Amino acid sequence: MNILIVYAHPEPTSFNGAMKDLAVQTLGGLGHSVTVSDLYAMGWNAVAGPADISGPLSDTSRFSVAREQTVAIENGTIAADIAAEQAKLAAADLLILQFPVWWFGMPAVLKGWADRVFARGFAYLPGLKYDTGMFKGKRALVVATTGTSADTYAPDGIDGDILAVLWPIHNGLLRYTGFDVLPPCMAYMPGREDDATRAAQLEAYRQRLLYLDQTAPLFFHPSEDYGPDERLKPGVSARSAVQRNV
Amino acid sequence: MNILIVYAHPEPTSFNGAMKDLAVQTLGGLGHSVTVSDLYAMGWNAVAGPADISGPLSDTSRFSVAREQTVAIENGTIAADIAAEQAKLAAADLLILQFPVWWFGMPAVLKGWADRVFARGFAYLPGLKYDTGMFKGKRALVVATTGTSADTYAPDGIDGDILAVLWPIHNGLLRYTGFDVLPPCMAYMPGREDDATRAAQLEAYRQRLLYLDQTAPLFFHPSEDYGPDERLKPGVSARSAVQRNV
Repeated sequence: MNILIVYAHPEPTSFNGAMKDLAVQTLGGLGHSVTVSDLYAMGWNAVAGPADISGPLSDTSRFSVAREQTVAIENGTIAADIAAEQAKLAAADLLILQFPVWWFGMPAVLKGWADRVFARGFAYLPGLKYDTGMFKGKRALVVATTGTSADTYAPDGIDGDILAVLWPIHNGLLRYTGFDVLPPCMAYMPGREDDATRAAQLEAYRQRLLYLDQTAPLFFHPSEDYGPDERLKPGVSARSAVQRNV
Repeated sequence: MNILIVYAHPEPTSFNGAMKDLAVQTLGGLGHSVTVSDLYAMGWNAVAGPADISGPLSDTSRFSVAREQTVAIENGTIAADIAAEQAKLAAADLLILQFPVWWFGMPAVLKGWADRVFARGFAYLPGLKYDTGMFKGKRALVVATTGTSADTYAPDGIDGDILAVLWPIHNGLLRYTGFDVLPPCMAYMPGREDDATRAAQLEAYRQRLLYLDQTAPLFFHPSEDYGPDERLKPGVSARSAVQRNV
């Protein structure tokens, strides 16, 4: 299959870099076609704005990101750097996001990849979200490092359940656009661990990569669980990472 | 008091722009000193990296964001654009983050403001987090717009409880660094509402601004609720936005 790894770390010899290299090697060894977008090396522009449109804006009096993205996708006038990433994403069966957790989320360069590449008209449109999302049939995997321990990301940990911390990415970015989202592969504070532990973390990731096809995705409620107000219907028990019945 | 509004929207006539202008006017009218960081207008660089250090790196063989930030804060060699924002933040009693929710989070330009300005040594250090956070005594408020309805952000809504969606910002960025975090002021899908509803949303925000001093902050568990593993002690009932007992 085609696999796109979007990698966001400024230092090639970092643990994130090692995880990225391991994925390229392991997945390539399995016969997959692997493409890497190394955002720091590419000098990726993180900030969505008028320059995302090549050619004139549809409305020069008032800039709307959503409207200009939609028109540009229709007209083929989205900026070349965005179009190149969209082509990679369109061809991918599996998307891997590889990053260090900074302030409980993606580094800005990766958030800006999402803001600009997941453009309206390409990644979502009215009626095309979640179960009917435009990337339906693709799978996604978050692979990330942290600065604190696994305990801090337990459901009763001080940082909050890792699946709650990642909810904006898992549900908001990936499931929203139709991906099946695999359980994340976390390496907890590799920077504070010894070499043996880091080696074990890499080996655990390698095992995950070898068995991706047999990995069940995370649960998100299917569309039939929701009423017209997009809230769970009476009688449906909330069982995603963060939703709860009221 | 001193108030810093960090504002992230590319269009001055947007609803976010109107909220920012209203806050400047209302808080100024109450006699407060208001500073605005308009990240799009400033051309803010969102991407943390080696250029954040003016002068030589402490380790030129391997770039560590955390280490280089720490050394630069100690030596006064953090880049001038970051130092200017840090000075504003140090002087602020209240921080307001004003932004449109993009992919369930901050636009990349604002995430990059956090990544670069909340530098190690300035915003956190070992032992200085949460109740002992370096910004203890300051308050923070998220003011944001969405593209979907309030129902979708209900606890049983398809997007997930707004307090779960904002957890990485509320707990991860703000409470982590010691802020008392006020309940967010959300304007749900103003772009799809009529003028009367938008006016009512602005008036609701104005009322919030007038009574900020009487607004109780969100609940986060105090440090004495946690054991040495940073998980809730046995017998402590989880009652934050996302934590739960296991």
